[in-house]
Amino acid sequence: MIFKIVKKDKKSMARRASLGTRNGVVKTPVFLPIATYGAVKNLSVEEIKNLGAQIILSNTYHLDLRPGLDVIKKANGLHEFMNWHGPILTDSGGFQVFSLAKHRKLTEKGVEFVDPINGKKHLLTPEKSIQIQLDLGSDIIFVFDDCPPHPSTREEIKKSMELSLRWAERCKKYFDKKLNPKSTDKRPLLFGIVQGSIYKDLRQESAKRIAEMGFDGFAIGGVSVGEPREYVTKVLEWVMPLLPEDKPKHLLGVGKPEEIVKAIGYGVDMFDCVIPTREARHGRLYKFSQSSRGPSSVKLQRTGLCKSSFYEIFNITNAKFKRDFKPIDKDCGCYTCQNYSRAYLNHLIKMKEPLGWRLATIHNLYFYMETVKRASEF
Amino acid sequence: MIFKIVKKDKKSMARRASLGTRNGVVKTPVFLPIATYGAVKNLSVEEIKNLGAQIILSNTYHLDLRPGLDVIKKANGLHEFMNWHGPILTDSGGFQVFSLAKHRKLTEKGVEFVDPINGKKHLLTPEKSIQIQLDLGSDIIFVFDDCPPHPSTREEIKKSMELSLRWAERCKKYFDKKLNPKSTDKRPLLFGIVQGSIYKDLRQESAKRIAEMGFDGFAIGGVSVGEPREYVTKVLEWVMPLLPEDKPKHLLGVGKPEEIVKAIGYGVDMFDCVIPTREARHGRLYKFSQSSRGPSSVKLQRTGLCKSSFYEIFNITNAKFKRDFKPIDKDCGCYTCQNYSRAYLNHLIKMKEPLGWRLATIHNLYFYMETVKRASEF
Repeated sequence: MIFKIVKKDKKSMARRASLGTRNGVVKTPVFLPIATYGAVKNLSVEEIKNLGAQIILSNTYHLDLRPGLDVIKKANGLHEFMNWHGPILTDSGGFQVFSLAKHRKLTEKGVEFVDPINGKKHLLTPEKSIQIQLDLGSDIIFVFDDCPPHPSTREEIKKSMELSLRWAERCKKYFDKKLNPKSTDKRPLLFGIVQGSIYKDLRQESAKRIAEMGFDGFAIGGVSVGEPREYVTKVLEWVMPLLPEDKPKHLLGVGKPEEIVKAIGYGVDMFDCVIPTREARHGRLYKFSQSSRGPSSVKLQRTGLCKSSFYEIFNITNAKFKRDFKPIDKDCGCYTCQNYSRAYLNHLIKMKEPLGWRLATIHNLYFYMETVKRASEF
Repeated sequence: MIFKIVKKDKKSMARRASLGTRNGVVKTPVFLPIATYGAVKNLSVEEIKNLGAQIILSNTYHLDLRPGLDVIKKANGLHEFMNWHGPILTDSGGFQVFSLAKHRKLTEKGVEFVDPINGKKHLLTPEKSIQIQLDLGSDIIFVFDDCPPHPSTREEIKKSMELSLRWAERCKKYFDKKLNPKSTDKRPLLFGIVQGSIYKDLRQESAKRIAEMGFDGFAIGGVSVGEPREYVTKVLEWVMPLLPEDKPKHLLGVGKPEEIVKAIGYGVDMFDCVIPTREARHGRLYKFSQSSRGPSSVKLQRTGLCKSSFYEIFNITNAKFKRDFKPIDKDCGCYTCQNYSRAYLNHLIKMKEPLGWRLATIHNLYFYMETVKRASEF
């Protein structure tokens, strides 16, 4: 792996860098569209590419259950199966097993759970999570971690964090054993995950100990499990200085556009979030505010100098858009804004025409990528 | 309008022709994808074009109710609204008002009905149907007809057919009044519709009298309202010889691939049907039989010399496709078969991922167009 910092901001910890993976170089800061089941909902791989997406995120938990790992292995991996030949990052299933599965039983070994769809029993362990991600053919692999709900007591979080640290060790050990460390050019990357919830000392202890283990990169987890939103920046303030500067950092599952911009100011390099695609399916579309044209206002947010919003959200199904023949945003370069009107989107989404969800998804993902791009200009 | 017959088959009444419309020339025989609400379900206009679609069909009844004619007028017509700049054919709303609306009241003037979604009262008359189609900017306009259900008595059908003939006269009169007959290069085309259900004498009387009115083309209606399927070919046998050879003929709402092939053998030029797109959404996919490769067996069906099926339908959600990494049809040239496996489609459609419906729709429409193409080779 080569992670090369290209330029640093003078007014914040933001940086631009390039991250080499075995399926191509990713320029950071970067936003990853989510392909939970091996497809970004409503989009084709060509549309993802045309949006400028460099890397996508897929879900270990979901793909292991459906279609099942054996299917994807037989397809020669996820890249072949879904016809996406750029880099793929996979989460470890840790978060999903705690938020989606039923009848979980947590032990030192791992997590036993029941598939909520067919009632079958499964066991996910640190070693198994890594093996699944290796079998999927992932380019960036995450360690398997325990994701306690919010709120949890300090004691509960402490116990969970210690378990996650032991699991991280097991993940690394298994990963190193499975891969020949000498053939570095072809191996996937392994990222550790910082936990510790809203407790400063636990977050910092987790960051230090995960940093010491020497991963290829680091993710900050547990900041989208229901805590008050101010903890997103607090956690970054606590942990970012303790993680190696020369390694990529991924903020898991965050978030709103202003949170991403602020996180870039703290030095975060990678983001994934379901918000833009999920909102699109409900007709809620993003648009840069007229008063904040150009990168300047996004930049001011990054450095904390401006708190006013640089964007608006509007619901395209609102009656006022029925006869509005302007594009969503006349200054937007996305396929949707270049070709279709608000009135057409209003009509399609009200009629539940799948093309409407597609066009809205394209626009919102473009907005997120454009936000990251503007926040990276210095 | 210029309808020019390019080549006639020696063994049947099939012919190849070109049909000039104000938005481009259509080579016939042709299959029209259906864009009920101004979008072919699950597809973009680029995908429709890439499939080789030359002309699409939209629904007057649906678009008049939602988004409403005022919206599409303000968008400068349906072509602009949906970003499709090729020819558009619109049905008259006659069939839909009888199959979808509630509390219909049929009078000499037209049909009063209640919108089943919002309960509002509407009145559709022959004149209003033509005006809506003119306002939509349609390139091929259909007369407004009465569509009685099957089964109906001979008396009922006779009465309905006479009403449809009077309405056809009113449509033509209104259309001619509204359009300057001298500026022929820019005007849309007007098609009459043959009715008469399963009664030979009524079908033939309808065909003769509609033919005498001198339309730009002719549609055969009422052959997809629930009659036994053998009537599709019977009706064509009865009416095709009575319609002017030098005018295009459209068979409304038909049908299965073998019915389309047979109809081409009777001299039908144009087809529309929801079957390929609807079946795709349920994972039912078409594929030419191995034993009937090439155009020959399709051709034999056209001339009635071979009755064995030239295709198979299979349900891609069937468990046997879960680990099948072949394309749907290795000899198919569609985008889906060129890029994706049966296993991926099985997974996507089971997971209700919209990309699955899209890929299946692309394949089935391609199959229908390929069927028409093969049946047109002589």
